[in-house]
Amino acid sequence: MSFQFPLAPHMAQIPSNPIFHLLPKLNEPGFISFAAGVPSPDSFPYDEIAKMAAETLAGNPKEILQYGSTEGYLPLRRAMAQHLRRYSFNAGIDELVITTGGQQAIDLLCKLFVEPGDAVLAEAPTYSAAIQVFKSYKANIVSIESDDAGILPDDLESKIARHRPKFVYLIPTFKNPSGQTLSAERRAAAAEITGRLGVMLIEDDPYRDLRYEGGHLPNIKGYDRAGNVVYITSASKYFCPGLRVGTIYAPKNLTPVLTVAKQATDMHSPTLTQAIVCAYLESGRMEAHLKMLCDMYRARLKAMLEAAAAFFPESVACAPPQGGLFLWCVCPPHVDTLALLAEAVERKVAYIPGDQFYADGSVKNAMRLNFSNEPEDSIFKGMEILSKLLRTVC
Amino acid sequence: MSFQFPLAPHMAQIPSNPIFHLLPKLNEPGFISFAAGVPSPDSFPYDEIAKMAAETLAGNPKEILQYGSTEGYLPLRRAMAQHLRRYSFNAGIDELVITTGGQQAIDLLCKLFVEPGDAVLAEAPTYSAAIQVFKSYKANIVSIESDDAGILPDDLESKIARHRPKFVYLIPTFKNPSGQTLSAERRAAAAEITGRLGVMLIEDDPYRDLRYEGGHLPNIKGYDRAGNVVYITSASKYFCPGLRVGTIYAPKNLTPVLTVAKQATDMHSPTLTQAIVCAYLESGRMEAHLKMLCDMYRARLKAMLEAAAAFFPESVACAPPQGGLFLWCVCPPHVDTLALLAEAVERKVAYIPGDQFYADGSVKNAMRLNFSNEPEDSIFKGMEILSKLLRTVC
Repeated sequence: MSFQFPLAPHMAQIPSNPIFHLLPKLNEPGFISFAAGVPSPDSFPYDEIAKMAAETLAGNPKEILQYGSTEGYLPLRRAMAQHLRRYSFNAGIDELVITTGGQQAIDLLCKLFVEPGDAVLAEAPTYSAAIQVFKSYKANIVSIESDDAGILPDDLESKIARHRPKFVYLIPTFKNPSGQTLSAERRAAAAEITGRLGVMLIEDDPYRDLRYEGGHLPNIKGYDRAGNVVYITSASKYFCPGLRVGTIYAPKNLTPVLTVAKQATDMHSPTLTQAIVCAYLESGRMEAHLKMLCDMYRARLKAMLEAAAAFFPESVACAPPQGGLFLWCVCPPHVDTLALLAEAVERKVAYIPGDQFYADGSVKNAMRLNFSNEPEDSIFKGMEILSKLLRTVC
Repeated sequence: MSFQFPLAPHMAQIPSNPIFHLLPKLNEPGFISFAAGVPSPDSFPYDEIAKMAAETLAGNPKEILQYGSTEGYLPLRRAMAQHLRRYSFNAGIDELVITTGGQQAIDLLCKLFVEPGDAVLAEAPTYSAAIQVFKSYKANIVSIESDDAGILPDDLESKIARHRPKFVYLIPTFKNPSGQTLSAERRAAAAEITGRLGVMLIEDDPYRDLRYEGGHLPNIKGYDRAGNVVYITSASKYFCPGLRVGTIYAPKNLTPVLTVAKQATDMHSPTLTQAIVCAYLESGRMEAHLKMLCDMYRARLKAMLEAAAAFFPESVACAPPQGGLFLWCVCPPHVDTLALLAEAVERKVAYIPGDQFYADGSVKNAMRLNFSNEPEDSIFKGMEILSKLLRTVC
């Protein structure tokens, strides 16, 4: 009575995301999680969402509950186009496709363009679940060299020439996992190089609005002259991830094929959750929500940085980000943070081991610490527990 | 400024679903649509859904709005396991995965098992959007021969031996597009043959509860002795498609890999829409809803059959189904229903041309008529318009 059909080889190689296996543990009382990259549930505007859900269902029930459009709920695409103007994007409604979170945007782009063995270029480290998608399409993931200001334009250009990738995948702002932000010069260079060489550039940008200091940098999409930059954003980090609303802002010729890919994948995303995000954007409350969120997370990041300075061994280097959800800490080379995780979980604190963010799993001594999901006192307590553990190995 | 990156070859071949291109026209006043396979919006329990959305958001907001579990909202999996007991399925919660509609279930199964060139066996005609998914994975779609009682077991067995398919895909009950139902004997034979030969059988079963006459037949899944049958169901046809809630009931060893595939695809489906379906199931109202729906659709099918008998040319053969959403009509061989569709749309009536339901588009003279989405008087009127058009060519 066992099911033993062989998986397609590329799927057999994909490990499950370790964050998800940890989830049951993380909900135990007293557990302090720096693991999942989740917004604080204290930030969710519950009452307003409940009100908007009720109003939406009362006002436009047939459209909300019937099959909807694959490209996304039209009023949301309109509101999202407006929202994107804050980034100086003048996106047409026919350049936007709503997805089930930013994750589906990455999946659809791979579905459309990647064949087994095709190269894709990405930062190292990069978003672990993007690596998971690339592997599920059997892509050859090639890393771009970086320094403190982000990827090196020369290396980007030479790797494009050498590997002819289907696309370059970048998270230029408060990158998951390292919190690093690509400099304005290098953003311009990335757009220029990929445009000139005729390679698609995917700018994955879910953290942009979570800036706690400094001024906003122009997006790579803003430098797009060749029409080769595809921009992904998501309401998961700055609003509510459970609603699963992501957006692709793509060159106009791409949206019809994205739509065909999405039709074949899930027909369309649920309309009610799209309508809730739409109503919130239309209400004009998003700016105040983002300010509240930035104030909350700025204080939490400050607490985590203070705790790291106070408790962590000196041999552990943490790079303070200007925004986002993550602090990236690098231990001495002999430390294996994956091996250490079991002991951390025993002590009721969790993080994500750095190897998850490398396609080849090669870097074993880093850890990603999320600071958005715990209040300051828990952050201090958790960092103290973690530092005691780190002192046993560092 | 044009975007001209080459699509992966398998994606370049997939036509967009013609139903979706028609959608804007179908909403014009006075248009009578027999095209899309949609439930009647008059059937949606608006007030109850609005109430349940509000209660859900009030009662459990953190879980509803935060990242959720990839397998699906646990209370829904519990309620769905209970719902499936009506089909004599004793499904464990760990055998169920919630998907974004039944469409995503098909996509995930292909993602896990199909490599380019792999054979999959299906009925002909079969669900057009399943064909679209199979093509998006570059599958070799092989048709199983049928007669009036459904697929021929001998042909199934010989084609499995010859093509070694990754799976057999069947819609045994009120099949889209033809409304045909596979006999109980052949259901047992399909389970026995695929189980003995070690081939996965996907039973796609969204229409089962929409039976207007006769008694329910056992599901193929009910004959599963080898643990090789994967069952798909969806709330889209019997409840509200805009909520996008589908379910895979799979052998227990398959759910972990389905979960990994779904993680990489969209992380999880929105929780609020899952919670609404859950609340409705838990409320015990689904039985009454299904009865109301069957009464409504029975009358509409009756109207369509009467109109076909009264108006259609004798050379057009329509096979009355016992349930589901579709009447399948076959015109004389020289008729091209795709070519005829433009003229039908001019006359403000639409259907889906039969070629969409054949992987090779070979059958040009059939049409699928949906009867659930229009009241009886519109059905009569639309059938009269359509019959006049048919008389010009039949």
